[in-house]
Amino acid sequence: MNTQPLQLGAVLYPGFEMLDYFGPLELFSVVGSSLVNINTVAQESGPVAAAIGSEGALGPKVIADYGFDDAPAFDILLVPGGSGTLTELENPAMLDFLRAQSETAQWVSSVCTGSALLAKAGLLDGLRATSNKQVFAIATMQSDKVEWVEAARWVEDGKYFTSSGVSAGMDMSLAMIEKLFGSEAAEMAASYTEYTWHRDADSDPFADELNVLAKQLGMV
Amino acid sequence: MNTQPLQLGAVLYPGFEMLDYFGPLELFSVVGSSLVNINTVAQESGPVAAAIGSEGALGPKVIADYGFDDAPAFDILLVPGGSGTLTELENPAMLDFLRAQSETAQWVSSVCTGSALLAKAGLLDGLRATSNKQVFAIATMQSDKVEWVEAARWVEDGKYFTSSGVSAGMDMSLAMIEKLFGSEAAEMAASYTEYTWHRDADSDPFADELNVLAKQLGMV
Repeated sequence: MNTQPLQLGAVLYPGFEMLDYFGPLELFSVVGSSLVNINTVAQESGPVAAAIGSEGALGPKVIADYGFDDAPAFDILLVPGGSGTLTELENPAMLDFLRAQSETAQWVSSVCTGSALLAKAGLLDGLRATSNKQVFAIATMQSDKVEWVEAARWVEDGKYFTSSGVSAGMDMSLAMIEKLFGSEAAEMAASYTEYTWHRDADSDPFADELNVLAKQLGMV
Repeated sequence: MNTQPLQLGAVLYPGFEMLDYFGPLELFSVVGSSLVNINTVAQESGPVAAAIGSEGALGPKVIADYGFDDAPAFDILLVPGGSGTLTELENPAMLDFLRAQSETAQWVSSVCTGSALLAKAGLLDGLRATSNKQVFAIATMQSDKVEWVEAARWVEDGKYFTSSGVSAGMDMSLAMIEKLFGSEAAEMAASYTEYTWHRDADSDPFADELNVLAKQLGMV
């Protein structure tokens, strides 16, 4: 039996969405550090500012423990979305890091527009995946080789978990915890955080808002 | 008409709970920086590590913009819970800061065991309030002058909003956003984050878990 905790690498970049990142980390933190260890990583180690809204403003800063260059190979990768995704889509260092880590990681997950980065890196080719509903086009524009699922709270395909927008990352994380550590661990994490877990990956209360914000922003 | 954004001061301390903090900040961030501006504050400015689980382990670090000494008077105060609450209950600097800020703030809010700190500071005397359900006793032990509400997702009394554990801070924050900026702003924030808002403050799916964890930890 493997007694080493799984190493979770949670990717930061300027303009990451706060709840995309800390919703999943909260739930994985509750599982206990004997099972999973949380690491923060960005292109450079040090402070990284979160997104405030959709228009590029920045807010609270989180410290990246590792830079891309000195990060170990993680067992689980978490890629959040946020207004900064648009910049990172054009950042070869980010796409290279996602490709390199995904090659060896057991599980690769994204929240919100994080799946746009995975798609741009070519990692979702031939797979089913989802993304934020209000700006779904940001993801779909990155690759036509992905089977984009418009109505899903999250999608699991192979070792990839992709979730819908922001809060959906928490439901996806509980599904991952259930898969990795059992249903009791997932139920405990939900109780501990007093979170009403939406267990049905295919039930998506926000699917009818497809590209509502993307249209307002003139993206589609 | 007041065109200045409200200044929200979000309090950090070692062992704060990640989702207690970033759930509310996510929702307030979506409202837009023309209406509300997010500030991070701790006893000393600089990095502050979040809680990992209930037993005092520490994880990701967030940067406090302000120390208690150089923080401006905030319009909205947010006090998270977390395993570090137990230490802060014995920290006069924290209790003094909460008293001083609460005197001038328009709104004072807490998530989870954050209400234990407000109660210890004497700020909830004569008021109705709630707290984390699994460790409810941490709050109730601080003051018998508070009308502790066992079954509530959140409680509003005067300028104080106190929520139940962790995830409940998001429902409370949407209620605060509705009160401060209107129901359209709250509904937009919920849609943007693809969050299913639990609107009924009195409906508490976790009330039957009262002190379950506190008993396991030998607190009651």
